Amino acid sequence: MMVEIRKPIPVAEAVERVLAHAAPTGTETVPLEESACRILAEPVTASHPVPPFNRSPYDGFAVRSKDTEGASGSNRLPFTVIDEIPAGSVSNQTLGERQAARIMTGAPLPDGADAIVMFEQTVEDGDTFTIRKPFEPLENVSLKGEDLAEGEEVVPAGSYIHAGTVAVLATFGYAHVKIARRPVVGILATGTELVGVGEPLAPGKIRNSNGPMIAAQLRRMGIECRTYGAQADDLDAVIGTVERALTETDALITTGGVSVGDFDYLPAVYEKIGAEVLFNKVAMRPGSVTTVAAGGGKLLFGLSGNPSSCFTGFELFTRPALLKMMGADKLFLPHTKAVLGEDFTKPNPFTRFVRAVYDGNTASPAGFNKSNAVSSIARGNGMIVLPGGTRGFKKGDEVDVLLLGIEEGSTQWKL
Amino acid sequence: MMVEIRKPIPVAEAVERVLAHAAPTGTETVPLEESACRILAEPVTASHPVPPFNRSPYDGFAVRSKDTEGASGSNRLPFTVIDEIPAGSVSNQTLGERQAARIMTGAPLPDGADAIVMFEQTVEDGDTFTIRKPFEPLENVSLKGEDLAEGEEVVPAGSYIHAGTVAVLATFGYAHVKIARRPVVGILATGTELVGVGEPLAPGKIRNSNGPMIAAQLRRMGIECRTYGAQADDLDAVIGTVERALTETDALITTGGVSVGDFDYLPAVYEKIGAEVLFNKVAMRPGSVTTVAAGGGKLLFGLSGNPSSCFTGFELFTRPALLKMMGADKLFLPHTKAVLGEDFTKPNPFTRFVRAVYDGNTASPAGFNKSNAVSSIARGNGMIVLPGGTRGFKKGDEVDVLLLGIEEGSTQWKL
Repeated sequence: MMVEIRKPIPVAEAVERVLAHAAPTGTETVPLEESACRILAEPVTASHPVPPFNRSPYDGFAVRSKDTEGASGSNRLPFTVIDEIPAGSVSNQTLGERQAARIMTGAPLPDGADAIVMFEQTVEDGDTFTIRKPFEPLENVSLKGEDLAEGEEVVPAGSYIHAGTVAVLATFGYAHVKIARRPVVGILATGTELVGVGEPLAPGKIRNSNGPMIAAQLRRMGIECRTYGAQADDLDAVIGTVERALTETDALITTGGVSVGDFDYLPAVYEKIGAEVLFNKVAMRPGSVTTVAAGGGKLLFGLSGNPSSCFTGFELFTRPALLKMMGADKLFLPHTKAVLGEDFTKPNPFTRFVRAVYDGNTASPAGFNKSNAVSSIARGNGMIVLPGGTRGFKKGDEVDVLLLGIEEGSTQWKL
Repeated sequence: MMVEIRKPIPVAEAVERVLAHAAPTGTETVPLEESACRILAEPVTASHPVPPFNRSPYDGFAVRSKDTEGASGSNRLPFTVIDEIPAGSVSNQTLGERQAARIMTGAPLPDGADAIVMFEQTVEDGDTFTIRKPFEPLENVSLKGEDLAEGEEVVPAGSYIHAGTVAVLATFGYAHVKIARRPVVGILATGTELVGVGEPLAPGKIRNSNGPMIAAQLRRMGIECRTYGAQADDLDAVIGTVERALTETDALITTGGVSVGDFDYLPAVYEKIGAEVLFNKVAMRPGSVTTVAAGGGKLLFGLSGNPSSCFTGFELFTRPALLKMMGADKLFLPHTKAVLGEDFTKPNPFTRFVRAVYDGNTASPAGFNKSNAVSSIARGNGMIVLPGGTRGFKKGDEVDVLLLGIEEGSTQWKL
C-alpha cells in the first residue's frame, strides 16, 4: 500500500480557506438579559444624548458662575440655598443672584445654574454657604451629549456582547436585542480504541476525551453541541452518521481518522459524500493532519485524534469559522508578546504551538510536550507560537503567545 | 450639614480586606458535561498511567530494534509483516527475527517490539518492506507513563475547569466532578433617577444599566444572580430589601447610594443592620466611593452608581471575593505590560483605571474617559492601570493592563 503524500500549507492560508466557506447562520431576537456573550447582529445607537441633560457629576451646589467672580480666601462669597435636587428630580426654580440649589450626583442643573460647587469646596452654615474661589462657566458640569450624541453608533454590529455592551444596551432601552443565531455544531469522535467516560478501560483502549473537550470549547463560545458519540472505525457507519449529522447541524466536528492509517476513514467519507477537501495537511505541530472539508454548504472539521492536536485545531480553525458564521468582527484569539521561558533549540520546519503558562511577562511550556500529551493540556492559559523554518529559540527570546482564556485569572495582585 | 471626610486606602489593601471576609460556599457534584467553567473542589489525579501502555505515536510498523542494526541505503534490510494492529486492538503475536506488525497510531506495541518504523521510512512490497536506517530501542515509542504516572496529581483543587481540564477529567473517568457551589448573588440598584430598560425616560431620569451590566459580569463567571430591582432612595425600603436579600443570597451587590450625598443611604443601611464597613474610600479613579461591608458572615458590595465606577469596582473587588468563596486558586484579572498609546500628563494622587483597547502591544483609551462615561464601557478589552502619586504618563511608556475578556478576540491573524 502506497502512503499518500500530502502537501502542507501554512496556517494562515488554511485559516483563509476555512473562512471562505463559513456561511452566516442568520439572526434572532432575545431579551436583553439573555444577550450577554452573544454576537450583535445590528449596531447599537444612542437613542438619546449621554448625558441626557446637563447634570452634576458631584454632590454639591449648583450656582451661577458669574456670581462667583472675585471669591478668594480673604473674600469668601456667600450663597443662599433655595432648593434641593435629588438625582431623578427636576427643579422648578430659577436661580437669582447669589442663589444656589443643593444638588446630588446625576441630577439635572436648575435653570440659571452653569457650575457646580462641590461640598468640599464650601463652608456651610444653615441654608447658606460661602466659597473661596471663582468658578468658570460649565465648571464641574457634565454636559448634555458630551459622551454620546443622539443617533451616534456606539457599538457596531458583529461585536461580542460583554458586560459593558449590556450596560449600553440597557441605557438606550434595548429590552430586546437582535443577535446572531448560534450555529448547531455536531461532534463525532471516531476510533475503535475509544470508550466512554463512565466505562471501564480494556487493554488497548482509552477514554474519549476529545468529545467532552470540544463540547467545553464550544460552550466557552456560548455554543451548544449535538453529540454523535464515539464511533467505531467502520467506514459505512461513519458515512451514515456524517450524512445524518449534516442534516441536523450547521457544522460537524470529527476527531480522529484523518491521518494516513489503514482505518483513517475520513478522507474516504469526504469523497463518498462529495465534500471538497480544503486542506489535509497544515505546516504546524501539533495538528498537522488537521483536515477541513466543505460539503452541502457546511464545514466539516476533521480534527486529529490526539488531544493536544485536536484542541489546537479547534482553536485555530473551528473557532474563527464559527465566529464568522455568527458575523463576529473579531475572529481570532487575542495575542501578546512574551519572553520565552525555556530553550527550544531543535529546528522545526513547521510552526509549533506550545501549550504554555503566561504570567504577564514570561511564557513557559505547560509541561510534557508531545502532541498526545494529556497533562500539558490541563495546564496553562496560552499557546506559544514558534514559527517554522527557524533555527530554534532561546530562553529570553521574544515570542508570540495566543491567549486562551482569561477566566483562569492570575494568582497575584501585582499592580 | 457637615460633609463626612473619608480616608482613602490603597486598592491592594481594599482587596485584602474584602478577601479576608470571603467565606466558602461549599461544594456540589455534577456530571462531567456540566463542569466546564466551574471551579474544581478536589484535585484530579491520574487513575492510570498516560499513556496506559507502550504505544505507537505514528502509523507504521512495530519492529525489534536489534533486527534493524546495520541497515543503510546500500544495505536495505527486509521485514515480513505478520500482524496488523488497529488502535484499540491488542496483538496476540510475538515478533520473531525480522518480523514486523503493521500498527496504527495509538495502538499498543506487540510483544517483542521495541521500536516503530514510520510508513514514510519504508519501501513496501506486498507483505514485506525494507528499511534503510537502524532504529534505537524505544525509538518512536510513546512510553507507558511518560506523560503521567498512575496516582499523579494532574490538576489541583481550586483550578478553573477549562476545556483542557475537561479532557483530563474525561481521560481519567470522572463521569461526575466535585466542584464549588456557586454563590447566589443579589443585585439591588438604588436611586430615584432610575427607570427600567423597557420604560420610557422622563426628565431627570436615566435607565438602570448597572443592574443588567453586573448580571452579565456575574454570568461571565458562571454565576446566576437574583435581582432585587431598582429601588427608590427611601431608607426604610432599602433596609427592608437589604435584610431580605441577605437571607436569600450569599452576597449582595448594591449600586449607588454610597457617596456623601443627602440620599446616599447605604452608610445608614450598614449601620442599621449592624454590618462592619471594611472601607468606604479607595485611592482609585473611577470608583473611589466603592464601599464594602460585612454583616452576618456575608459581604455587601456597595458599588458606585456611575457605570464605569460600578464596572471597575466589581472587577477589582467583587470578582476576586466570589472566586475566593468558590475556592479558586487564581483570584485576580490576568494582566500584561503594554505600550501606552496616549499621553496622561495630568498628575493624579489616586490610581487610575482607564478602559482601553489592547491590541497585543499598545493599550489606548477606549474613548471618552470620565467615571460616568457610557461609551467607553462599551469599547475595549482591558483597563490600563496608572499608579497614583506620579507626575503623569507619556505615550510610549510601559504600563500594566488588566485583561478583561478574551472572548472579544482579535481582528487579525497576525502570526
